[in-house]
Amino acid sequence: QVNGERLWRTLEEMAQFGATPRGGVTRLTLSEEDRLARDRLRGWAQEAGFHCEVDRLGNMFIRRPGRNGALAPVMTGSHGDSQPLGGRYDGIYGVLAGLEALRTLNDLDIETERDLLLVNWTNEEGARFAPAMLASGVWTGVFSEAFALSREDKDGVTLGSALQSIGYRGEKPAEAFAVHACFEAHIEQGPLLEAEAIDIGVVHAAAGQRWYEVDIQGFAAHAGTTPMTHRRDALCGFAELALAVEQIGFDFAPDGRATIGMAQVTPNSRNVVPGAVFCSVEFRHPQQEALVKMEAALEAAVEKLAERLLEVKLRRIFDYAPVLFDAGCIARVEQAVNALGYSHTRMVSGAGHDACYVNRVAPTSMIFIPCVKGISHNEEEAISPTWSEHGANVLLNALVSAAQD
Amino acid sequence: QVNGERLWRTLEEMAQFGATPRGGVTRLTLSEEDRLARDRLRGWAQEAGFHCEVDRLGNMFIRRPGRNGALAPVMTGSHGDSQPLGGRYDGIYGVLAGLEALRTLNDLDIETERDLLLVNWTNEEGARFAPAMLASGVWTGVFSEAFALSREDKDGVTLGSALQSIGYRGEKPAEAFAVHACFEAHIEQGPLLEAEAIDIGVVHAAAGQRWYEVDIQGFAAHAGTTPMTHRRDALCGFAELALAVEQIGFDFAPDGRATIGMAQVTPNSRNVVPGAVFCSVEFRHPQQEALVKMEAALEAAVEKLAERLLEVKLRRIFDYAPVLFDAGCIARVEQAVNALGYSHTRMVSGAGHDACYVNRVAPTSMIFIPCVKGISHNEEEAISPTWSEHGANVLLNALVSAAQD
Ligand SMILES: NC(=O)NCCC(=O)O
Ligand SMILES: NC(=O)NCCC(=O)O
Repeated sequence: QVNGERLWRTLEEMAQFGATPRGGVTRLTLSEEDRLARDRLRGWAQEAGFHCEVDRLGNMFIRRPGRNGALAPVMTGSHGDSQPLGGRYDGIYGVLAGLEALRTLNDLDIETERDLLLVNWTNEEGARFAPAMLASGVWTGVFSEAFALSREDKDGVTLGSALQSIGYRGEKPAEAFAVHACFEAHIEQGPLLEAEAIDIGVVHAAAGQRWYEVDIQGFAAHAGTTPMTHRRDALCGFAELALAVEQIGFDFAPDGRATIGMAQVTPNSRNVVPGAVFCSVEFRHPQQEALVKMEAALEAAVEKLAERLLEVKLRRIFDYAPVLFDAGCIARVEQAVNALGYSHTRMVSGAGHDACYVNRVAPTSMIFIPCVKGISHNEEEAISPTWSEHGANVLLNALVSAAQD
Repeated sequence: QVNGERLWRTLEEMAQFGATPRGGVTRLTLSEEDRLARDRLRGWAQEAGFHCEVDRLGNMFIRRPGRNGALAPVMTGSHGDSQPLGGRYDGIYGVLAGLEALRTLNDLDIETERDLLLVNWTNEEGARFAPAMLASGVWTGVFSEAFALSREDKDGVTLGSALQSIGYRGEKPAEAFAVHACFEAHIEQGPLLEAEAIDIGVVHAAAGQRWYEVDIQGFAAHAGTTPMTHRRDALCGFAELALAVEQIGFDFAPDGRATIGMAQVTPNSRNVVPGAVFCSVEFRHPQQEALVKMEAALEAAVEKLAERLLEVKLRRIFDYAPVLFDAGCIARVEQAVNALGYSHTRMVSGAGHDACYVNRVAPTSMIFIPCVKGISHNEEEAISPTWSEHGANVLLNALVSAAQD
């Protein structure tokens, strides 16, 4: 069993990097705050005697050697980046639960057969650079390295130059190698476990996602002199689109999700009829056929904007099929949960995770712990020390089980 | 008659300050670009032998002395600031047509009875600091100096500190003094004059305006895990409001205008259900009763957002009654137009202008010249050298007529 108190202290200390006044964190990937968090993680790893290697996308690999370094290692980890005004557990909990598992093995002087690898993946959130899970996507061959390095944030900074700026562009190619098994611990980010007072979610699947970018082009005009009938108002067209997207979500309830999270108005001046709007759209659903239908509905909504004499460009930038995790890994997690005497349920993740990509190249599954009211991507995100400790115990047991194979 | 060629050259030279790739200007008030434009204007004034005085709001007063400095001066002028991605004539045309009138009087060695005062007003656009016509509003007693100095731009910079930064915070209080008559030349910013091939708009009135700020507060949530039925999506509420505001504009057609020009989404991340939206709303109408009804309709639309469990705060930040210009000034402009043999029509301004505020303390009217297709608050804004020259000739004649009284 892990040292729950040390894990909690470590989580608290990490939460200072990018801390916001209302108890959350803004630790955008490859920001100065992220650099400080990475440095601290590396420091902790080194204190515990673990080597840390960084690849060309800034993914950090922390290794606790086993008896037989020639065998494929067992992997765990998650991400240290956050949303803007995000929570202090999303992602980093999985990294630090992994660190705690490795530290505990040191404390107990347990030698595993296989190496254990703790990974801190770059840009999981997709908040600074779209899409999400970009670096684990490159590592598993979904995206090219060149594509990832050239992604730009809102200010036009590329991921590649951001890596350079914070000194986390490593030498090692970001390419998958043989992994025996992978487990990612994460907060649920939904309300189910807490509501039903269940200790652990055994995640057997994840919803698919499709992300889009939309450019709506109208004509900037004077708000005082331009009659209503003569306007090509990009913002009013955007408003129509936003309500159509919301309706698509309702049409595919209860499992579907449809969200516009980001919108930028040009020139964004109070007395100018907006000339252009740039926005995101994203859909989620556990069934691929539903995603295809949601996309068709979006295309129809976009076409309707021609009635407003708006020119609209729609681009799909992310297509991520629903995921089924590995039965063997799921079984190991269930064995661990049972051995520890925790309550559990099988569940589907509505969020995307690095583990979803790793699952393409290695047997993988996930361990969820509850979070208060399911609140996430919000400064109010919260978990309890007990939940945190239980999740890390399950992770430790699953890792050791796989590493002794 | 003025030197039309010199006026055009001066306009072209000024358009370099804040020039945008597509032929417009972004010269936000009190920006570095505005400083350069102000310095150049002062330089031109000094070369022509005119003294330039700056008041505590950065308004620049350029004086050509008349025979009797004890008499109330005759005023002209407009503003040098622009919208973001705005046009190169909106505002600055009136300043430089005024400069050209003063230069012409030098060339022709004409001494007027009264002093002539050319004013470059600060922050007419209301783009960087809301509301519009802020500094002429202080000068005429509509706003207090403290209110104006404390207005903040999007980055939280106050107007007062922006004035300091560019070195245009003068000593002189921004307070009206006796003015015998005031004329402001401006581009129409609407399509009427060009469409009917009329040289000059004799502006006898201006529409009223009401500006608002709206805070829509929902709850930021994870786009993947939060069911559609559990969301308090501030952006979808905003979309509903935007379409309601547009409808209010149509309900008060043809004279009404309703616009949301600015919106900011928080946290504005692709996979986060938006927690908050901050936006502007503005209405225009030549009748005050209509503005009152438009406001009531806005209040109803805001209340409806409670159905979405959104908390909405609505603040009116600008209430500017319809304006009737001075009959005597209008008559002088018409006399000038007739003497010059130009075609003209009386018209109402849909835009607000510094002259609308000056009209509260001194007899005032405006002179409009055509602009291509009525395009304004847009980089494509355009006028012809002939239009420009005609407007300056009318201004010169009106000024001299008033200054010889
Ligand atoms: N776990 C998580 O919040 N990941 C971000 C990507 C997503 O929105 O699914
Ligand atoms: N003339 C002009 O565009 N002024 C800006 C204020 C307004 O929008 O009416």
